[in-house]
Formats: sequence, structure tokens, C-alpha cells
Amino acid sequence: MINYNPKEWFTFIFRIHKADTVRKLFPMFVALSIYSAIIAWLELEVWKLSSNSELKNISLMHGLLGFVISLLLVFRTNTAYDRWWEGRRQWGALVNSSRNLAIKIQAMLPANNTADRLFFKVMIPNFAYGLKNHLRKTYIHDEMEAIPGQEPLHTDIGKHVPNQLAQQITSKTMELYRSGQITGDQLILLNTELQSFADVCGACERIKNTPIPFSYSVFIKKFIFFYVMSMPFGYVFSLGYLIIPMIVFIFFVLASLELIAEEIEDPFGKDANDLPVDTICSNIRLHVSELL
Amino acid sequence: MINYNPKEWFTFIFRIHKADTVRKLFPMFVALSIYSAIIAWLELEVWKLSSNSELKNISLMHGLLGFVISLLLVFRTNTAYDRWWEGRRQWGALVNSSRNLAIKIQAMLPANNTADRLFFKVMIPNFAYGLKNHLRKTYIHDEMEAIPGQEPLHTDIGKHVPNQLAQQITSKTMELYRSGQITGDQLILLNTELQSFADVCGACERIKNTPIPFSYSVFIKKFIFFYVMSMPFGYVFSLGYLIIPMIVFIFFVLASLELIAEEIEDPFGKDANDLPVDTICSNIRLHVSELL
Amino acid sequence: MINYNPKEWFTFIFRIHKADTVRKLFPMFVALSIYSAIIAWLELEVWKLSSNSELKNISLMHGLLGFVISLLLVFRTNTAYDRWWEGRRQWGALVNSSRNLAIKIQAMLPANNTADRLFFKVMIPNFAYGLKNHLRKTYIHDEMEAIPGQEPLHTDIGKHVPNQLAQQITSKTMELYRSGQITGDQLILLNTELQSFADVCGACERIKNTPIPFSYSVFIKKFIFFYVMSMPFGYVFSLGYLIIPMIVFIFFVLASLELIAEEIEDPFGKDANDLPVDTICSNIRLHVSELL
Amino acid sequence: MINYNPKEWFTFIFRIHKADTVRKLFPMFVALSIYSAIIAWLELEVWKLSSNSELKNISLMHGLLGFVISLLLVFRTNTAYDRWWEGRRQWGALVNSSRNLAIKIQAMLPANNTADRLFFKVMIPNFAYGLKNHLRKTYIHDEMEAIPGQEPLHTDIGKHVPNQLAQQITSKTMELYRSGQITGDQLILLNTELQSFADVCGACERIKNTPIPFSYSVFIKKFIFFYVMSMPFGYVFSLGYLIIPMIVFIFFVLASLELIAEEIEDPFGKDANDLPVDTICSNIRLHVSELL
Amino acid sequence: MINYNPKEWFTFIFRIHKADTVRKLFPMFVALSIYSAIIAWLELEVWKLSSNSELKNISLMHGLLGFVISLLLVFRTNTAYDRWWEGRRQWGALVNSSRNLAIKIQAMLPANNTADRLFFKVMIPNFAYGLKNHLRKTYIHDEMEAIPGQEPLHTDIGKHVPNQLAQQITSKTMELYRSGQITGDQLILLNTELQSFADVCGACERIKNTPIPFSYSVFIKKFIFFYVMSMPFGYVFSLGYLIIPMIVFIFFVLASLELIAEEIEDPFGKDANDLPVDTICSNIRLHVSELL
Repeated sequence: MINYNPKEWFTFIFRIHKADTVRKLFPMFVALSIYSAIIAWLELEVWKLSSNSELKNISLMHGLLGFVISLLLVFRTNTAYDRWWEGRRQWGALVNSSRNLAIKIQAMLPANNTADRLFFKVMIPNFAYGLKNHLRKTYIHDEMEAIPGQEPLHTDIGKHVPNQLAQQITSKTMELYRSGQITGDQLILLNTELQSFADVCGACERIKNTPIPFSYSVFIKKFIFFYVMSMPFGYVFSLGYLIIPMIVFIFFVLASLELIAEEIEDPFGKDANDLPVDTICSNIRLHVSELL
Repeated sequence: MINYNPKEWFTFIFRIHKADTVRKLFPMFVALSIYSAIIAWLELEVWKLSSNSELKNISLMHGLLGFVISLLLVFRTNTAYDRWWEGRRQWGALVNSSRNLAIKIQAMLPANNTADRLFFKVMIPNFAYGLKNHLRKTYIHDEMEAIPGQEPLHTDIGKHVPNQLAQQITSKTMELYRSGQITGDQLILLNTELQSFADVCGACERIKNTPIPFSYSVFIKKFIFFYVMSMPFGYVFSLGYLIIPMIVFIFFVLASLELIAEEIEDPFGKDANDLPVDTICSNIRLHVSELL
Repeated sequence: MINYNPKEWFTFIFRIHKADTVRKLFPMFVALSIYSAIIAWLELEVWKLSSNSELKNISLMHGLLGFVISLLLVFRTNTAYDRWWEGRRQWGALVNSSRNLAIKIQAMLPANNTADRLFFKVMIPNFAYGLKNHLRKTYIHDEMEAIPGQEPLHTDIGKHVPNQLAQQITSKTMELYRSGQITGDQLILLNTELQSFADVCGACERIKNTPIPFSYSVFIKKFIFFYVMSMPFGYVFSLGYLIIPMIVFIFFVLASLELIAEEIEDPFGKDANDLPVDTICSNIRLHVSELL
Repeated sequence: MINYNPKEWFTFIFRIHKADTVRKLFPMFVALSIYSAIIAWLELEVWKLSSNSELKNISLMHGLLGFVISLLLVFRTNTAYDRWWEGRRQWGALVNSSRNLAIKIQAMLPANNTADRLFFKVMIPNFAYGLKNHLRKTYIHDEMEAIPGQEPLHTDIGKHVPNQLAQQITSKTMELYRSGQITGDQLILLNTELQSFADVCGACERIKNTPIPFSYSVFIKKFIFFYVMSMPFGYVFSLGYLIIPMIVFIFFVLASLELIAEEIEDPFGKDANDLPVDTICSNIRLHVSELL
Repeated sequence: MINYNPKEWFTFIFRIHKADTVRKLFPMFVALSIYSAIIAWLELEVWKLSSNSELKNISLMHGLLGFVISLLLVFRTNTAYDRWWEGRRQWGALVNSSRNLAIKIQAMLPANNTADRLFFKVMIPNFAYGLKNHLRKTYIHDEMEAIPGQEPLHTDIGKHVPNQLAQQITSKTMELYRSGQITGDQLILLNTELQSFADVCGACERIKNTPIPFSYSVFIKKFIFFYVMSMPFGYVFSLGYLIIPMIVFIFFVLASLELIAEEIEDPFGKDANDLPVDTICSNIRLHVSELL
């Protein structure tokens, strides 16, 4: 994620940032310019169509459908943004559960039980890192800490990693209960936090694996394409070669909205707009180690 | 569900996919073309109506109602998408509950109790498969696993299958409690997961059995039909025979939105846009068997 | 509620269903036709107003306010639909609680305690029927089952019926706890379900008794009325007697949205668009009796 | 709150109700009429500006900004309505908690403990009345019942009244637990209800004390004012003195939306559109006394 | 936060408040006026472009994109407002938890345990103040009260302050449980409140640290800039020098929405539109001290 100061308007407007849609759409801008220049040249100079031509009125259609395309892009923007924001809320829930589990474990365990404190101090952040890498379909061994002075826990990379880590945390908690280190009432207090590990993982997988229904994705792209491509035919009569900057600007607006939506729909990657998952993970490690 | 890469614009735009609304609406495109060609021919060549005719101004109405129809289709799209996405969240909740139940049972049961572990290993995924088939009004015997080395549990196919499976899981849990395999405090920890089976089932039935109110469905279809059918009368004077591609494109846009909404409103079937329920079921079986 | 197949477009478009707004608005269509015919006749043939008249430009106002009226009707539609859907979710919650309570009671009670199983088998569906009739301000004695072989429970029809039924279920549960048939931990497991009876009842009463604020209801009706009634004055110059079908169609669209919203806002009655509350009740009775 | 039958269209349209925005805006209607008459007179008869004047085209701006003002008013309407509806849901939650607490206490207390039943029978409705008056910044001694045969509980009117009432209920419950009248498991069952008293109070205070951000309130009012006041300059050329009814109607629409939003934003007062808080309170007293 | 009476329209419209966007945008108004005056002068008086020029029709583009920019600004407004309101709800949750914890502790602790009552009386408000200052990246020692007659608790300002305060409250509660001052059942009742401290803190950090995705922020600013800057080219032909007030007013509307959204997006600061966090903190201290 890019950290930025939203109040620096001029930088925003004139700098073309790496993640800027202007950069990505630039080849299309060139292609569209050539395309509409050719149409303008053909209609105005080769065929010399009269400006009373019926072709001019095809732009009535663009007016009528302007509402629909706008509303559709807003629908697209809202759904993509909702996923992005729900992803953020899920990682926020993981932060809260990690902290609350650390706070509770620290308060519940007898003062002299440092070994089990150490277990949670290492394993809670490990879950966050394991989940992050699971969502990116990778496994980074160096990000997982070992528990000092204890046999390393076995994690099978071929299987579902976050599930195994959640299970190790739950098993250790049940062991503490069975051995009387925490009472039954205290165990009940830990339930929310223990559950939330698998819940956050499932919710993130859901966001990642379920893009907007295929038909909408196809439909919006087809709609933008034919809307923009048919535009020069009618507007050339009113605008002449000024059609070129107009088409480019309209395409910039419509395609940018679709492009940004595509990018933020899967918010767990490393794109410029994705969530700051790496920072959240290191914050969890920092704060849990302060607490335990 | 179709897996797709949302960034491949050109494939989207030029390939006509099986689930594409273009394919479904094609016969209507032909019919509408003929219809508007006839009207254009009649008005322009048979009756030779003057372009100052009052009929031309009927298109004022299409401009005025353009807002309403757009907003109505967005309302339709939003409600259909919300059901689709709620359906996905319910199946996500089932994934989470299945995992959490497996994690907790594994951690709670005494190490030597393999028979009961086996019960949950088989029955948790069975519930997912039973629910999937219940929502599709079928029962696939081969998808239900038996518990190795135990008498098969009786499921009455004439009755509500997911309820029976949920009951078998709850009964087994209460039995474990009565026999002292799990304590009362541990039983309380399992409550959320046990409850969620019937909750997910009820929510999916609700989504499946409650389409958008009948009056809206009728009204939107009537509105689109009369809006599009009355369009050529006025626009023929400005557009001549160009009315044909315009009507087809406008109908494509309006009817596509209604068609897609109809398809995703009931998201548990096997349509191209439906949820990947089969994949979710096999993932539950895979992950539960890794955990238990 | 009407069960329908949303894919049968042609039936929808050409059949005028009992619940169709066309039927309800038909008298208004006739009145409006006469009204706008008179205005057209006066302006065009009696007063012979020039089409350059300033009166023609009053239609500028209709263009400007077209947005506002559309957005307002969408607001109206959304809030009415939200109540309808929340009502459906509340009844879905009742289905889930009924099933979960039946599943849990069946699993918790000692195998030989058939009398108390019978109590819940009868009383859980009775609550659903009692609530349904309470929301319709009636009491149908025949829909309430008695508990076979037991003294019938007294229900005072003059008082709040669902509250009394919820109380009888809660009292019986506490009695089971006091007599040791269920343990304290099991009692805690039943809490969600016991609570949900009064919660669902309260939520349904809230939806039923709180329509959209009075001022909005007045304002939207006044706005539609003056908007449509002032429309012929300006548009007559462009459209002549074609104003008649145009006014009727625009009124059909605007008034339909308000009419449907009014109907679904209180979704517990027996209107064509109301929720299938009767079916839900008999399903609860069926499924609970399968489980207990 | 006004109880009304939403289906009586004609009453709505022609009667000017006390809460109607027409009544409140009437002086503004007169002022605006005079204002636009003067502008029309100056432009048309004093300065005799040509209708080709550039001033005429200022109305292009009104067309362009028509979208923004509509969308902004819908945003305003949605946020105000959401507060109103959330306020209603909070009071609904209080109804549910009051009923559930009465149901549970009745079922839990030993049959002979009438004194403590009486305590809850009096104190639960007292909380509702206390909260209602607290939100209206008043204290009505007569609405608070005393517990028959017991020393009246001291409530310090200078302090936060609902907090004190919630505390008296919680203290009594803990006392019942300490004296063994209810068990620990039963105490856990009462937690949701006990918590909800302070939760509902806090949520209502939040709604009451946090109007829409100051800048939006200023901005919307400024926008409506300049939009409407600048309107006659351009439209006079098309409409002549017909500008007067048009300006009044447009102002009626825009200002009504803002006025209604202002009124329902704080829904706990005694305005015509406010929530029926008094009725809810007396219903709580009625139903709790039926239950206990 | 500014307290204001939303019904004083005239003050709003004519006073230019400190937080008013008019004040902030004033330099831009001047610059834009000069810019569009120059364009008007060049096009009309230097180059003497004919009003049939194709340049005039560039304003078609502004009409077409008017929908998109309006909808985009509404999206921006909604997301910013949602954060602001969620921030308010989180602080409301903190108020509720603080009160409920105080009410419960007061009712649970034995009457003679004043020392521990004092602890909560001091520490609950301290958490609110600590969180407020943490969100403003500061630490104000004087706002933290010490517990009279006890050793001051050590808080390490270099570490995460709210976490430490939440831990001190949780540790004290566990100590009370271990020493038998509160029972296990009572401990379970305190769980919601104890958890909510870290939850509210995490949610506020999430709102503060996650502005709208970078790409949207860039895109909206670029869009507004090019939309407004290209406007004079076409509209000059219709409006002459009247383009100046029109451009200023349109820019005022569009930029105000973006400016207000930027300001309320991070609602925990001391800006005019920020949440009344200081007042909430002092209310928590007041009400907790009334209760304990």
C-alpha cells in the first residue's frame, strides 16, 4: 500500500505515479487516438458526409446509455471497494484477536509459567505471517519464528498452513486447561479469540477466491468497449478532430474505474493499492511481544 | 462457477462465452432488428411521415424515463448480487465452522479416542455435501461417506436431510459430554459451531426460496419491454435505419442486466455464474481430513 | 406470496396478474387520459397557443426534477425492500432457532423423557403460528396444537400471545434444569434459542408498526402528483395528442414504484407480494416433528 | 409519530398537514415568488434583454449541477433516515431485552419470591421511561413507579439517570446470585439483557448528539440557496413569468428534503415524524406487567 | 466538533465559518477566475472564434461525464462518511463498555472492597484518554489520573499505550478472580467488556491508517482538475464572461465534496468536523465516577 497525504493536490494531478491508471492505459490512448482520427478523416474528408447525416444522431444513444454505464461502474466500484474494506476489517479482527489473546494469556497464566507464554508470543505472530503467505500462495520459512528452547513444531507445507497453526494454538490451550493451568471459566473467555483465527482465514480466502460474477465482468467490459468505439461515428460531426482528446478522456475515466476495481478486488497481493498486510504482520509481532 | 482472469480484456470482449448474455439474447436481437426495420420502413417510406411529426417527440419520454430505468436496474442488480454474496458468505461460514469444529474436537478428545475423531472426520464433510444436494433438490448417495468400521447412520431421504445430519453431529457431541469425554466448559466452546450447521442451512434455503417480490419482477420486465418497443417510433426520424443497431445495443444493455440478475439470484445451482459449491464441499472434506 | 418462474418473460409482459399494478392503476389511467386530452384540446384547439409559447418551456422543469424524483423513488424502493427482506430474515431466524432448539432438546434430554420432548414438539411450532396470527391481529384457535395427554396450557387471548408462548417454553426449560434433566452447561447452550423467540417477535412488530416517516410519504405522493399533473401543459406543444399515452406510461412507472413499496413495506399480511409466512409456519411444524 | 394509512393518496395530496413541509416553507414561497417576479420584470421589461443574451445560457450550469444536488440530497436523506431507523432498532432492542428479562426472571425465581418479581416488574419499565426523558433532557417524576411495599430507590436527578437505573437492576441481579436465588449458570443467561440497558442508552445518546458533520450541513444549505437563487436569471428568457411557479416548485422539492432530514435526524423528540417513544414505553410497562 | 443548530439556515448561508470550504478554496476561486477570463478573452476577442466552432461542442463531453463525476463524488462522500460514523460508533462502544464494566464491577465486588473499586474508577477513563492521545500520536501525562493511595502503575510511553492499559485492567480482573473476589460465572460476564477495549482501539487504528485506496484518490483529483480546466473552452461561446462565476461555482461544488471527504476520513483529530473525542473522554470519566 502506498502511504500518501491526501491533501497534496498538485502532486496528485501532475505526477504520474507507478500505480496510476494513466500509465497503464497509455498504449490504449494512442490506439484510440489513431482509431478516432481515422474515422474523423474518413467521415469528414474522404466520404464528406453531411453534418445532417443520420449517423450524427447515433450520439443520442450515448446520451441515453450514459446513465446506465455510470451506474454500472459505480456498482463495480462499490463491490470492489467493499471487498477491499472487508479484507481490511478481517485483518483488523486478526490484530484485535492477537492482542486480546496475548493480554488474556498474560493475565491468566501463573506468573512462573514462562515456557507457555513464550509459545503464544511466537505462535500468534506466526499465524499472521502464515496467513499472509498462504493468501499469496507462497511459504516463507524465514518469517516463521521458532520457540526458543523448544522442539520446533512440525508444519506440513503441502497441507493448509494456517489451519495447522490455528490447531497448534488451540491444542496448547486445551492442554493448559487439562493440566489445570487455566480454569474452565477462563477457557470460555478464550473461545472468541481461538475461533477467530480460522474465521479470519476463511473470510480472506472467500474474498480472494470469489471475484465479481463472470457475467458482470464480461458485460461491463463489452459495454465499455462498444460504447467508446461507437462514439466517434456520431460525435465527429460536432467535434471534428477534437473527437480525439474527448474519446481519450472519456475512455480514461471509464476504463480507470474498471482497472482500479480489478486491482483492489483481490487486496492481499503486493500491488500498489493492496492492503498493508506486511506492516500489519510486523505490528502484530511487535505488539504481542510487548504484551507477553 | 467460471474461473477467469479479470485482466484479459480482449478475450472478454471478442469471445462469446457460453454464459454470455449475447448468446442468450441473440434470437431477440434478430426479432428486434426486423421489428424496428419494419417500423422505419413504414414511417419513412410507406407513410412518409414528416420529420416535424409529433411522433418524433415521443423520444422525450425515453429521455425522461432513462433515469428511472437505469436506477431500477441498479436496484435489481444490487439485490441479486447481495443474495449471491450472502450465499457465498453462508458457505464461507460453513467452511469456518467445519474447520473450527475439527480443530476443537481434535484438541479436546483424549488422544486415544480415534473412533469419535473418525465420526467427525466423516460427518462434517457429509453435512456440506448433504446441504449442497438438498439445495439442488437431489440426493447423491455416493457423495456421502460412511464411517469406517461403524454401523452406517440411518438418513431418511424423504425427510429433511441436512437437519438429520446436524442432529447426528449434535447427538454425538452430547453423548461425549454425558460420557465425560468432554467437560461442560468444553461443551460450551462447541456451541457456536454446532448451531451454525442449521443456521447456514436455513439461510441458504431463505436465499433460494425468496426471489425478489413478484411485483418488481413483473414491473421491471414490463417496463423494459414497453420502453424498448416504443423507442423506434420516435427515433426513426433522427436515425433512419441506424435505429436497428441502436435498438439492439440498448436492448442488449437493459436485458443483460435483468438476465444476469435472474441467474445469480439463486446461486446454488450449476449455472456458469453460480457459486463454486462443489469445490467448497471437496475443500471441506480435504481440510477436515487434514485436521482430524 | 406468489411463486413464479422469473425466466418466463412473455407471460410476465402480457398477462395482467391480480397483483399487477396495471390493474390497480387502471382507473387513474382513464382519468389521466381524459385530463390530458382536455388540456391538449384547450391549448391546441381552443386557445390555439403558439408553439413558441413560454408554456412550452415549463417542461424544462420536468427535465431538471427528473433526477430528484427518480432518486427519491429509488430511496423509497430501497427502504421498503429492506423491511421486506429484514422481515424474511427474521422469520428465517425463527426457522433456525426452532430447528436448533429441537435438535438440542432431542440430544440433551434423557432417552426415556418423551413427555417433555412432546412439549417442545408442540410448543415450538405453536409459537410460529401464534406470532403469525399476532402480526395479523387475529387468533386462530385451530392452528394451535395441544400437547397430547397433558392439560392444555392456558393462553390469554386478550394479552400478548407470543410473549405467553415464549414464556411457557422458557419456564419448561428452567424446570428441566431445576429437576436435573439438563445440566447448567446445557442450559447455557439453549440460551440463544430461548432468547430468539422474543427477539423475532419484537423485530417483526417493529417492521409492522413503523412505516417510512409520515413526511416522506406525504412528500413523495405530493411530488408525483404535481409532477405528472403539470406535465401536459408543456409537452402538449411537442407531442399533441400523443401526450396521452406518454402521461399514462410515465404515471404507470412512477406510481407503480410507490404502490409496490406501500405493499411490501408491511410484509406479514396476505397480499400477493407478502412473505410466505403460512408456508414457513407449516415447515416449522413439519421439520420440528421430524426432529423430536 | 403520526399514524397514517399510506394508501389514502388523495388525503395526502390535498390536505396540508401540520407537519407538512408546505406549511413550513410557505413564507419562503412568497419571498421567492416576489424575488423571481422582480428579476423577470427587470430582465424582460426594464432592461429588455434579448433572449439571445448570454445570461440565458447560465441555465446550462443548472443542468450540469442537477445531478450533484440530487445525489447530495439523497445522501442527506439516507443518512438522516438511517439514524431514525437505527433509533427505532435501538428501542426495539430495549423492548426485546425488557421482555426477555421479564420472561427469564419469571422462570428462574422460586415461585414464592414475589418481592423480587415486583422489583423487576417496576424497574424494567422505569428504565424505559427514564431513558425516554433523559433523551429529552427532562425528568418526569410521575412516570416512574415505586415498588409497592418497599422503600423507594434513590435516584439522583442531577446525575445520569439511566445509568443509575441500569445499576439498580444489575445490583439486584447480583444480589439474587449471591443469595442463591439464581445459580451461576442462570446468571450467565441474564448477561445479554443486563448489558443491553446501557448499550441502548449509549446508542441513543450517540444518535442524538452526533448530527451530520457541520461542513456537509453548511455546504448543502449554501448549495441549495445559490442554486435556486441563480435560477431565475437564465430561465426567465424561456419561461417569462412562469418562472415563478417553477422556482417555487423546485425550491419546495429541494428544501423539503433538507427539512425532513433535519427533523428525523434527531428522532427522540415530540415532532410529528419522531419515533413513537411514548407508546413504546407504555407497551413495555404493559407487557412486562403481563409477564411478571 | 462544532455544535450547531441545523435549523438556522440564514446563519449557515451567509456566514463564512472557519471550517467552511469557501474559505479554503478562496485562492483557487481567484486563480480559476483569472484562468477562465483569459481563455474567454483569447477565444472571443483575440482569436475571434466563431460560435459555430467545433470547440464549442467540447461541452458535449462535460454533459456526458457529468453523471460519472457526480456518482464518483457520492461514492467518495459515502466512504468518508462511513469511516467517520464508524469511528463514532466505536467510541460509542467504548462508552457503553466503560459504563457496563463500571456497573458490573460495582455490583459484583463485595461492599467493603473500595481499593479495587478505585482502581477501575481511575483506569477505565484512563483507557479512553490514552486511546484518544494514541490516535493523535501524542501522550498527555496530565490527562492520566493516578489511583489515590496506591503505587502508580508503570506505563511505557515508548510502547503501545492503550494495549498496556487494557492489560492492566484485564490483569486486575484475573487477580480478583484468583483471589475469589469474583466468581468464575461473574468473570464470564465481564468478558465482553474486557475484550472491547482492544477491539475499539484496533478499529480506530484501522480507520485512521487506511484511507481510501491511493488510486481512487489520485483518479478523483485528476478527474475534477481536467473536467473543470477544460470547461471554459467550450462554454465560453454560450456564456461569454459569465463563464467566470459558473466555473467558480462548479469548482466550489466539486472540490468542496472532495475537501470535506478528506477532512472527515480521519475523524480523530482536532479539525472542525472531527468527532468530539475530548467530550466523550470527559463524559466517560464523569459517568464512571458517578457509578463506582
